[in-house]
Amino acid sequence: MPIRIDTASADFTQRFNAFLTMKREVAADIEVATRAIVDDVAARGDAALLEATRKFDRLDLKASGLRVTPAEVYAAVAACDAETVEALTFARDRIELFHKRQLPRDDRFTDALGVELGWRWSAIEAVGLYVPGGTAAYPSSVLMNAVPAKVAGVERVVMVVPSPDGKLNPLVLAAAKLGGVSEIYRVGGAQAVAALAYGTDTIAPVAKIVGPGNAYVAAAKRQVFGKVGIDMIAGPSEVLVIADDSANADWIAADLLAQAEHDANAQSILITDSERLADDVILAVEAQLTTLPRAEIARASWENFGAVILVEKLDDAVPLANAIAAEHLEIMTADPEAFSLKIRNAGAIFLGGHTPEAIGDYVGGSNHVLPTARSARFSSGLGVLDFMKRTSILKCGPDQLRALGPAAMTLGKAEGLDAHARSVGLRLNLR
Amino acid sequence: MPIRIDTASADFTQRFNAFLTMKREVAADIEVATRAIVDDVAARGDAALLEATRKFDRLDLKASGLRVTPAEVYAAVAACDAETVEALTFARDRIELFHKRQLPRDDRFTDALGVELGWRWSAIEAVGLYVPGGTAAYPSSVLMNAVPAKVAGVERVVMVVPSPDGKLNPLVLAAAKLGGVSEIYRVGGAQAVAALAYGTDTIAPVAKIVGPGNAYVAAAKRQVFGKVGIDMIAGPSEVLVIADDSANADWIAADLLAQAEHDANAQSILITDSERLADDVILAVEAQLTTLPRAEIARASWENFGAVILVEKLDDAVPLANAIAAEHLEIMTADPEAFSLKIRNAGAIFLGGHTPEAIGDYVGGSNHVLPTARSARFSSGLGVLDFMKRTSILKCGPDQLRALGPAAMTLGKAEGLDAHARSVGLRLNLR
Repeated sequence: MPIRIDTASADFTQRFNAFLTMKREVAADIEVATRAIVDDVAARGDAALLEATRKFDRLDLKASGLRVTPAEVYAAVAACDAETVEALTFARDRIELFHKRQLPRDDRFTDALGVELGWRWSAIEAVGLYVPGGTAAYPSSVLMNAVPAKVAGVERVVMVVPSPDGKLNPLVLAAAKLGGVSEIYRVGGAQAVAALAYGTDTIAPVAKIVGPGNAYVAAAKRQVFGKVGIDMIAGPSEVLVIADDSANADWIAADLLAQAEHDANAQSILITDSERLADDVILAVEAQLTTLPRAEIARASWENFGAVILVEKLDDAVPLANAIAAEHLEIMTADPEAFSLKIRNAGAIFLGGHTPEAIGDYVGGSNHVLPTARSARFSSGLGVLDFMKRTSILKCGPDQLRALGPAAMTLGKAEGLDAHARSVGLRLNLR
Repeated sequence: MPIRIDTASADFTQRFNAFLTMKREVAADIEVATRAIVDDVAARGDAALLEATRKFDRLDLKASGLRVTPAEVYAAVAACDAETVEALTFARDRIELFHKRQLPRDDRFTDALGVELGWRWSAIEAVGLYVPGGTAAYPSSVLMNAVPAKVAGVERVVMVVPSPDGKLNPLVLAAAKLGGVSEIYRVGGAQAVAALAYGTDTIAPVAKIVGPGNAYVAAAKRQVFGKVGIDMIAGPSEVLVIADDSANADWIAADLLAQAEHDANAQSILITDSERLADDVILAVEAQLTTLPRAEIARASWENFGAVILVEKLDDAVPLANAIAAEHLEIMTADPEAFSLKIRNAGAIFLGGHTPEAIGDYVGGSNHVLPTARSARFSSGLGVLDFMKRTSILKCGPDQLRALGPAAMTLGKAEGLDAHARSVGLRLNLR
């Protein structure tokens, strides 16, 4: 049974806080093992990368075989189901349209003193995209990472994807092609992250690494952070549905299970002011579980981490939702739009009963890489800005330097940085 | 003597690459020690925080004494030199004006299918600002961190600053007041970072931690990353000056030394096409060093990490500058504006001889917290966006779901996520 808590009960705050701080993932102690792999690839390049690939993916390659060739990609795309490729293309186009609106504007202005100020945005030159192997290899995620990078103007989008026993998912290769990926290497794990960060003879280094991965990949990303940029460290996924009595219990149950089927550590939460709806959703979840292919995973998630929270009135859901800061928030109330304006912390909001989160996962156009584990309190979903950086610009003439200089000299001296003050004073013939 | 390399020499590429990858900081092996402190504060709260403060800052406090009182702040401001407070106020106002232009716009649009899409920006609710104690306590840095947070709309800006032996820098408290800091606690080190991340009885937790610190602070920030957001890990500072024969050697020397005086690990680089200028700058540096209060630090930086790179023609400086990706780039050429357009990787660009970097450090208005150690290849200076997050919004009606649903179902099934497909199909009476 999922956790069921009621704001009317005396111990609500205590139980809600316990729920909030509940750990869904146990961090494995793999830092030392990961560092050994990363350091080895940093030091020995291709040789270390090939050894690790032999060991972990049971794949015996030469350096010349690391790169997936255009012919292989072409063959993979040809082997894919045509309808699926069409759906991927449809998704790609919508993701591209949405993300083009995120392109930031440069700014340049002259203030009252005549000082010219501003900034210029530019794309990161080369980005690495980690794609997991096995069952977690989602072609949709390839699009969600690659398309914003291309929209930003990144020239080199370098994909790494492990091919355990030599197997690659053709749809992942098709998504890479559609997403504009420039190079693909059949390597994974900490060794692939290290290769992207430090470069090898075969793989030129990148400046930033994005994309989800297992605990080793996450640990390796933390370790190379600073040498290169990284995106957020993704945790298990979660959905919060806020619904009133008017909502459809079957639809909510389906959405809770769509989240739960991802991973036994995923989390599905319903907050409602309707006890009737709460009961109906719980029954509907049970009914739908009986025919779900991934029922075992979904049931584990629902029973261990699922939650139904009953509130007296719907507005009581607002502080709870802001504390949960869900990756995905579905609002199915009489006026979802008005309710959504009260929400501050959420990765993405899905308004009304006809916007199941699965639409956002695939074809809505917005990004499905979103902050998990309450990190929507301080971070955003992936977007074009993650693939760009801003350079600020400052320009003074002699008059402006005369106007600003004395205050700068005062502050430089106050901070004990005389050379700072002097660099201004010298130009103004002041000491 | 600084490193001197010439693009005309046969081993240039080799020497430049060695220069690029030269380590200026040796990472101390303090992860284990830091983790013990962080875990202790997470587990025992105030008691652990007070113990660590007694041990590391030689300061015996009770929990009630952790917070710096408004009366203390008032007294500190009253004790400051009036001219310096005036300069800080002038800086504050300019920083505020500049950063207000960075406030992002929300977006909402309806696409051709009638799908409503968009996003909303909101401020992070609570941010921690780490301020180092001792000589590295710069009031200007307090402003550079606090003002963008306030412009973003952050309600709680919580400053922590160690007070070794009970000493606090009055100018730092004055800057906190001017910058709109809401709470100040006299704690530092890994223990302060842990208190901000996990909260104690006295210090309510924040959602993100920014600000520079020593190796322990940096290690603690890495460790709490995920639990809270963090800004970049700042490395030693650097300046790159690109100049032609028209530039003033004394001014350049002064700017190189302004960088070098920060820290023995700071780096000052000149790239020029004028051998005459290169020689003059080196002589001017020596001359100015003789009268500089922080000559010892500046000389160590200049002799160990300083560099003068001679290029045949100025355009040859472009790829070098983009590879160096300097935190600060000064351009002193005949047409600095035109030259700057060729630069892709730099934290901030200072145009022309009358824009010494020290102006940007204090009163230009742009932020002086900038990406160091080549990280301008993938990251930006601190700004308003660092204190905000974006929530994406998606809204379909029945018609839009009918238009988008089939492709989403196809992709869900292709990824083996049947519950995803079902959450759409159920609403459309499709299976």
